[in-house]
Amino acid sequence: RNISGTTKEVVELEKSLASLHKKEAALTFACGYLANQTSLSTLLSIIPEVVIFSDEKNHSSMIEGIKSGRRPKHIFRHNDVTHLEQLLKSIDKDTPKIIAFESIYSMDGDIAPLREICDLAEQYNAITYLDEVHSVGLYGAHGGGIAEEYGLMDKLTVIQGTLSKAFGVMGGYIASSKNLIDVIRSYAPGFIFTTAMSPMLASAARASVEHLKSSNVERKAHRIVVEKVKNSLKNAGISFLLTETHIIPIIIGNQELSKAASKLLFDEYAIYVQHINYPTVQKGSERFRITPTPYHTDEMIKHLTDSLVEVFKRLALL
Amino acid sequence: RNISGTTKEVVELEKSLASLHKKEAALTFACGYLANQTSLSTLLSIIPEVVIFSDEKNHSSMIEGIKSGRRPKHIFRHNDVTHLEQLLKSIDKDTPKIIAFESIYSMDGDIAPLREICDLAEQYNAITYLDEVHSVGLYGAHGGGIAEEYGLMDKLTVIQGTLSKAFGVMGGYIASSKNLIDVIRSYAPGFIFTTAMSPMLASAARASVEHLKSSNVERKAHRIVVEKVKNSLKNAGISFLLTETHIIPIIIGNQELSKAASKLLFDEYAIYVQHINYPTVQKGSERFRITPTPYHTDEMIKHLTDSLVEVFKRLALL
Repeated sequence: RNISGTTKEVVELEKSLASLHKKEAALTFACGYLANQTSLSTLLSIIPEVVIFSDEKNHSSMIEGIKSGRRPKHIFRHNDVTHLEQLLKSIDKDTPKIIAFESIYSMDGDIAPLREICDLAEQYNAITYLDEVHSVGLYGAHGGGIAEEYGLMDKLTVIQGTLSKAFGVMGGYIASSKNLIDVIRSYAPGFIFTTAMSPMLASAARASVEHLKSSNVERKAHRIVVEKVKNSLKNAGISFLLTETHIIPIIIGNQELSKAASKLLFDEYAIYVQHINYPTVQKGSERFRITPTPYHTDEMIKHLTDSLVEVFKRLALL
Repeated sequence: RNISGTTKEVVELEKSLASLHKKEAALTFACGYLANQTSLSTLLSIIPEVVIFSDEKNHSSMIEGIKSGRRPKHIFRHNDVTHLEQLLKSIDKDTPKIIAFESIYSMDGDIAPLREICDLAEQYNAITYLDEVHSVGLYGAHGGGIAEEYGLMDKLTVIQGTLSKAFGVMGGYIASSKNLIDVIRSYAPGFIFTTAMSPMLASAARASVEHLKSSNVERKAHRIVVEKVKNSLKNAGISFLLTETHIIPIIIGNQELSKAASKLLFDEYAIYVQHINYPTVQKGSERFRITPTPYHTDEMIKHLTDSLVEVFKRLALL
């Protein structure tokens, strides 16, 4: 990319992403995994004496970046701000700190206490690194994610996102201050030694980002469908983790049964729900994860619920 | 990808890549960097007691993978089979070993002694991991790279390549045995936790791979242009590293001068040659790297040489 891969399309996309998150600059990567891995690893290597605080349920891409950054790390209990504060207190106030967390956790569909974490960051002299891959495009008046929805975008130092999920293309990015982006551009191996995003993908992604900045039609339809699915499952007696998000986890708790249920649904009911197993989730918490789209119809929802009831009964899960 | 990202287009592309390298299977990644980083890291974590032997000029992506694999590593002097053999001898014959190297090294344009390294691998019970990113599409009767050109594809355990260079799209891959590919698919975080390649890119890449499997027109034209550029530079008294490949490195040896020359060429001669500096090459070996394409004309070659002569004279480099 630095050598000869920067195209007008990629530059325009980065401007669009910076403006989405109200940041000075943005930088794209081949995928969201690389964005997390190389940005966190580089920040840890570059900031003298820095210490990292990481939510225990952070995504593998953040964990890999933190590991290869080789700095002291403190893992706080999932979404537990009391524990986070205990850990922050244990470190000298002047020591640089990074708090790394996600807004929506993909496997449980729960939302981080953003405001409390940002307040702690201010109080204890930490910068914040927020993974918004499951919320960009879907939440916030312009699709800026949970931080936009909560009015907290300016409190976050780095917002990381993806172009592969709601935006429907491929690639990852970070948005932050001009200086921080310049540091990543200049020092991150996962940026320097990789190829730039294809200009056709960059154009497609930018069209998608710009569309969802101004259109709320899809977001509204999405919420309505999500509510319908949750109600339909509830009425049928299928239990799922209660969340405020579009991610509906149905815990099965057994690898063989989740696999069998997935196969039955696919073979006999023409429904594809991939079972989620270890290492993506812990053993014993194997699950289905239902993520409705704005385009699922009432008939589809009914078919899904009816089929799940039948399959779960056949497997003695209901 | 494992969860719901596998499309027909990606599967077809992987078949096409496996057949290109005469291997049982192939696996695609968001980019070549991730393919190297996560494949090497995973092989080192999975194979009990394995030891790695790595060429000192291997690309950053391999180095990152080797680092995060955390196994004993032996760095052999660049392309030096005598040194490699000394190191191999020092380890118990029964200990599993990986030799990781590139076919064409991008900054010097030189070719590894493939046959000798494969022979040593056989003799000392090592598997081989070859990075062919600068040769796939460009070398071999079907674009299978240097290993195909030398008739050695069957001697290599893993061949890694890119879809971003000669194939003109984006993405990386490995080709190997069915079993080894299954291991990477099941254990590599840089595969499991990343998004699948976009189907539009996969289709484009496959078209490109299939075209270059049967067409030698581009490869022939490429060699002719490369020879013309080398002759033109030689006749003008511009020295460059002599290579057997399409990569023509002109060593400038000073960061300020290489930057100034690049700027002059761009501003006054409408030629874009990016100066290559640290950390991509060692300090003191800053350079231009000329990589002609089949579509550069005689007039362009003359303009390049004339402009380089003028610029180098102005900067007292010639």
